[in-house]
Amino acid sequence: MTPLSQNAVHGITHGIEPPDELWRSRARSHLDTLTKPLGSLGHLEDLAAQLAAILRAHPVSPLSKAVYVFAADHGVTAEGVSAYPSAVTQQMVLNFLAGGAAVSILARLHSVELHVVDMGVDGDFENVPGLLDRKIRKGTRNMLHEPAMTDEELARALRAGADLADEAAAAGHAVLAVGEMGIGNTTAASVITCALTGSNASSATGRGTGLDDASQNRKTQIVDAILNKHFAQLPAPDPLHILRCAGGLEIAAMTGMILSAARNRISLILDGFISTAAAALAVALEPRTRGYLIAGHRSQEPGHRLLLEHLGLNPILNLDMRLGEGSGAVLAMPILESAVALYAQMATFSSAGVSEASA
Amino acid sequence: MTPLSQNAVHGITHGIEPPDELWRSRARSHLDTLTKPLGSLGHLEDLAAQLAAILRAHPVSPLSKAVYVFAADHGVTAEGVSAYPSAVTQQMVLNFLAGGAAVSILARLHSVELHVVDMGVDGDFENVPGLLDRKIRKGTRNMLHEPAMTDEELARALRAGADLADEAAAAGHAVLAVGEMGIGNTTAASVITCALTGSNASSATGRGTGLDDASQNRKTQIVDAILNKHFAQLPAPDPLHILRCAGGLEIAAMTGMILSAARNRISLILDGFISTAAAALAVALEPRTRGYLIAGHRSQEPGHRLLLEHLGLNPILNLDMRLGEGSGAVLAMPILESAVALYAQMATFSSAGVSEASA
Repeated sequence: MTPLSQNAVHGITHGIEPPDELWRSRARSHLDTLTKPLGSLGHLEDLAAQLAAILRAHPVSPLSKAVYVFAADHGVTAEGVSAYPSAVTQQMVLNFLAGGAAVSILARLHSVELHVVDMGVDGDFENVPGLLDRKIRKGTRNMLHEPAMTDEELARALRAGADLADEAAAAGHAVLAVGEMGIGNTTAASVITCALTGSNASSATGRGTGLDDASQNRKTQIVDAILNKHFAQLPAPDPLHILRCAGGLEIAAMTGMILSAARNRISLILDGFISTAAAALAVALEPRTRGYLIAGHRSQEPGHRLLLEHLGLNPILNLDMRLGEGSGAVLAMPILESAVALYAQMATFSSAGVSEASA
Repeated sequence: MTPLSQNAVHGITHGIEPPDELWRSRARSHLDTLTKPLGSLGHLEDLAAQLAAILRAHPVSPLSKAVYVFAADHGVTAEGVSAYPSAVTQQMVLNFLAGGAAVSILARLHSVELHVVDMGVDGDFENVPGLLDRKIRKGTRNMLHEPAMTDEELARALRAGADLADEAAAAGHAVLAVGEMGIGNTTAASVITCALTGSNASSATGRGTGLDDASQNRKTQIVDAILNKHFAQLPAPDPLHILRCAGGLEIAAMTGMILSAARNRISLILDGFISTAAAALAVALEPRTRGYLIAGHRSQEPGHRLLLEHLGLNPILNLDMRLGEGSGAVLAMPILESAVALYAQMATFSSAGVSEASA
């Protein structure tokens, strides 16, 4: 059913190794020499040690950081699953590049290079400076009636994301964040969550960008119908089959980027529900990817909580955001940068002449 | 019992008004015009609206930010309540100013002006550049046997903190953070927490900088003995009596700064357990101070949770830190700065030509 995308995944995941545990403990030892009570930097110490394990080196500040925002439309919006019209996907892409969207402002503020990628926006862009054109198709098919994409489209989307991670690695970035824009894509993420974890539709379906109760109920029914149509059993055994049926093109590209980041030994910051769905697929395809992931924040979407538990990730931020665009991932960047600056720049007990704790 | 400190507090709190609710709703209306689903920035929207209510104006980025780290020693360390010797207070003050401590690095990274204040370090500093000398006494008295300070010492410490907030306001800072250094001061904060909230010693006493089980039990017994010595009933009715008995000089200075920040209409970011104890005293002295407070993070200390609940504060960060020094407050600054940058710089639906949600 998915020979081309299987091939693409094998090409991307070949040679992925987990983060280096020797470097993680070396980093922990270094942290214990710094002028602070043992372990008192909490989650910041975990992050610094994770970066060391990923880099196989002592991390240095400032980190070279980039965020990739993947945009695509979803055929399932024909079912009325979103509070916003599909046209907003294209409008927001222009807003990202014009600098007026949340992610544009956060990326500028926190020195994160912003890349906007058209994976499948349902509209034509006329020569927009800065936009990366990787369009596979003007939106996916309606997954209520047929698979969102073909095997070939899936393979191309996965490779497009992976190639961008390769380019980011070549450009020297140490940390990548992924985000997305796609009206209707919380529906895709809910389907993926249920298909991967076996959760039922009602526990994994939220309000998206702001549905009322009645619309959320209808969305839940549609998610349920989609699950019934495509999957004989839950959890469904084949991640590529899930991705091909549910889409979207932006999710497939994020899955490719996440896998490729692991191969390139780059830390990957997840944003909210949609990007974490892409990460859960990536980990299902290659479990060694798991150690390269950092959850930027915990969004309000109930399905996001399920996925974070499924992946065993403890998010950096809990600010009840639900915007997408990579905004939560970029907002976590100054915390990650702080962890590394502390690791790299704090004085040691001996260098500062500070007395240590009594045994 | 505390006429001089009462006088000092009246001088500081005179004319404090709560944040302006008209400006808070004006800010909410502005946030609803920005290109994002309604409310999708979560806690960031609350923070931006709080700043508008405090400033009586639209907040602008970058914010002018400063952190004050107040240092003092505690007579109760004679009882063996800390894993570290008292000498560490003085050593760490030098580390703050030399740039090697956690707060030094975070303040530099996040463009926060760092001020270090000697309120009562048990040692002499020989002409240390940058140190603000407001020393009242070389450490407090041992509160297990007598009140930690006299009424006059308390009055002077309160005024010293308040004067620094006045100077910060005159220098144009919009946001202040408070932090502290003082071996033994989690014991003082535990006593204050119990005295203010009526909690028992065991629920409000933690490991501080890293006590083992036996030492934590002993610390809890000492907190209990101190409560029995000074307070006929719990909660104790007089915040100044609590502060005079439990100390420390750095906590009194933070209380003064917090009250004065409210009078100067400056946002005040709290750090962990100790600074939140100072804030709880400030709010007990003048409830209108409450609206000027922002909790930077939730520390590992159990008493901190009690105080945050008592004050009804929802911290920005939850990173299991327990370092003090203002580190958690300064780490929250880039999040606050982000909230303001989004508020001030995001495009509106109409300016960006983005379609709004269907009703």
